[in-house]
Amino acid sequence: MVATRLSDVAARAGVSVKTVSNVINDYPHITPATRAKVEAAIAELGYTPNVSARSLRKGRSDFIALAIPEMASPYFAELGAAISRAAKKRGITVLIDQTEGEPAAEQFVLDGMRGQLIDGIIFSPITTAPTKITVADDGKPLLLLGERQPGGAVDHVAVDSVQASFDATNHLISLGRTRIAAVGVGGGAGTGAVRRKGYRKALKAAGLPIDPALEIDGTGYHREDGAAAMRDLLALPSPPDAVFCFNDLLALGALRALADAGLSVPGDVAVVGFDDIEDGRYHSPSLTTISPDLDWLADKAVTLLLDRIAGTGPPERLDLSVPYTLQIRESTTG
Amino acid sequence: MVATRLSDVAARAGVSVKTVSNVINDYPHITPATRAKVEAAIAELGYTPNVSARSLRKGRSDFIALAIPEMASPYFAELGAAISRAAKKRGITVLIDQTEGEPAAEQFVLDGMRGQLIDGIIFSPITTAPTKITVADDGKPLLLLGERQPGGAVDHVAVDSVQASFDATNHLISLGRTRIAAVGVGGGAGTGAVRRKGYRKALKAAGLPIDPALEIDGTGYHREDGAAAMRDLLALPSPPDAVFCFNDLLALGALRALADAGLSVPGDVAVVGFDDIEDGRYHSPSLTTISPDLDWLADKAVTLLLDRIAGTGPPERLDLSVPYTLQIRESTTG
Repeated sequence: MVATRLSDVAARAGVSVKTVSNVINDYPHITPATRAKVEAAIAELGYTPNVSARSLRKGRSDFIALAIPEMASPYFAELGAAISRAAKKRGITVLIDQTEGEPAAEQFVLDGMRGQLIDGIIFSPITTAPTKITVADDGKPLLLLGERQPGGAVDHVAVDSVQASFDATNHLISLGRTRIAAVGVGGGAGTGAVRRKGYRKALKAAGLPIDPALEIDGTGYHREDGAAAMRDLLALPSPPDAVFCFNDLLALGALRALADAGLSVPGDVAVVGFDDIEDGRYHSPSLTTISPDLDWLADKAVTLLLDRIAGTGPPERLDLSVPYTLQIRESTTG
Repeated sequence: MVATRLSDVAARAGVSVKTVSNVINDYPHITPATRAKVEAAIAELGYTPNVSARSLRKGRSDFIALAIPEMASPYFAELGAAISRAAKKRGITVLIDQTEGEPAAEQFVLDGMRGQLIDGIIFSPITTAPTKITVADDGKPLLLLGERQPGGAVDHVAVDSVQASFDATNHLISLGRTRIAAVGVGGGAGTGAVRRKGYRKALKAAGLPIDPALEIDGTGYHREDGAAAMRDLLALPSPPDAVFCFNDLLALGALRALADAGLSVPGDVAVVGFDDIEDGRYHSPSLTTISPDLDWLADKAVTLLLDRIAGTGPPERLDLSVPYTLQIRESTTG
C-alpha cells in the first residue's frame, strides 16, 4: 500500500497542506468547518500522521516500552500480554524489549532507549540493583517491576514475595509435611533471597528445623533447573516430602523429574510453584501455586506511568503491592 | 543518573560542542588526534548520542519491530526471544508489538508504526490477508512470517505446513492408527486450511477415509480449545485412536482432557502437536511434535530484513522454507 501523504489529505479536503498540518497539530484559528473537512479527509484516506515528526513537536509518541529479561519465560510473556492490553485500552502501544538480564542491555534500557520515541519505560531488572536506578532530570518516567528493594527512587509495583512465600510454605506445613525443600534460592534481582526469607519464616513459625541441604539454588529458573534440583533432592539420604519452587517453571521441571523417578505427586512429594502460568493449570497433576493478579498489576503500572508522563501523578514515589491468592490444586491435594 | 550531554563530552575532550557533533556524525575534515580525544571522552563518560535526533539525520535507528498476534502464546514468545537474540548479535534492538490479531492493530503495524524510529518490520499477521500487504514506495522494509499464501509481494519466511502436517499424520498412520482426528482446522491466517491439506493428503495416500466428524475447528489455538475439542471427540459414537493437533497448546489441552477421562496416552489415544514449545518437551507424557528450527528462522529473517534496510538484498522477493524435524516422544510411542 502506498502511504497517504499530507498533500493527499489536503487535495481531498480542498485546503492547503499548511491547513492540514494546523488541524493535526491542534493549532488555534481554524474554523470548525475547515476542521471537519480535514478530519473527514483524514478518516476517508486512513491517514496516519508521521509519528516521528509529530512527537518531536509535541513531546509525546503514545508509545511506552516494557523491558523484560526473557520473553520465552511464560510469566514474562503473560505479563507482557497483560501490560500490552492495559495500555491499548488507553490508546497507548507497548513496545517490548528483551534484555536477557545482561548488564549492558539493562544499562541500554536506562540510557539509550530514552532516545527512542517512547514516553516512558516499565522495567523489570535482573542484574541492575534497583537502588542504582533513578530518573534523569531530563529523562523519561520509569516504573520498576520485580522484588521490592530498600532505597528505590522510582515507582515500583510488585507482589509481597516474603508474605506469599510464607503462605506457600505454610500450606505445605498444614498438610503435615515436615521435610520441605526450597528450590530457587539462587534467583537474581533479590528474588531468591526474599522468597527464602518467607520460606524460612514459615518453617520457624511451625517449629520445623532449617536444613541448608534442602535449599537448592535453581539459578536460571527454567524447567531444566527445576528438574536438576529435584534429582539432587531425591539423591539425598533423607529426601524431602514437599518442595516449594520459587517459580512455576522450576516446579514443572521438578514434576517431570518426579515422574521420571516413578514417584507419586502429592503422595510421595507435594509441589508448590509461584506465578500461576497457564501451563501449570493444565498440567497433570495441576500445579498449586501463588497467583498474582496480573491484570491488576498491568492496570496500575500503566495508569501510574501515564500519570507520570502527563505530570499528574502523586508527589511521592509509590510502592504498590500486587494482590495474590494461593491456588490449591492437584500437586498438593491430589 | 543524570544523562551525559554533548557539552560534557566537549568539556572532557577540550574541544567545542560542534567538533563533538562532527565526530559523532562522521563528518570529514576531523584530524585523527581530535577524533581519538572525542571518542575517549565519549567512552569515559558513557555518552549515548540521542537516537531520535541522530536517526532523523542518518535515516537509521538500529531498531526493528516484530509484530506478533500473541505474546502469551509460548510459540510466539519463543519466536520473539529467538529473533531478539539474532538481532542483538548484529547490534540491532527488537521492539515487540502485540496485535492480538485485531484488524485495526495489524493495520496500525502496516501504517502507523512506520512513523516510529524503526528501520524495518517483521510481521506475523493473523487477520490481514498477505496478498494485501505490500511495501509503500517510501515505506520501511517488511518481512512476513506465517503461512505461505499465493500472490505475496514481500519477503516471507515459514515452515512448509502442508508437508509438515503430512509427516505428522503419516507418523500416526505408521503406528497403525486408523481413526486419526485433526484439531485446529478453524485456525486463522490460513493455518487451519494448509495443515488440514497435509493431514488429508496423508490419509488419502494411506487409503484411509476422510471423516469430517474427526475434523474439529479448535479456533483460538489455546489449551482450552484443545481440551474442549478432545471432549467432543471422546463423545463421538466411535472416538478416534489418534489426534493430530495443529499446535502444541491444542495438544496439551487435549492431553489434559484425556487424563481427566482416565484414558491412557498413547495406549488409547496417540497425540501429535506442532511447534515444539518447551512445555511439551517437559510434559508427562512428553509431546511428539513438528519442531521448526527457530534459530534458523530468526537468523534468516533478521539477515534478510537488514539486507533490505541496507539496500543490499536480492532483486527478487524471497520465500524461505524453515527446516523442521518430527520429534517423536512419549505421546505417540509411550
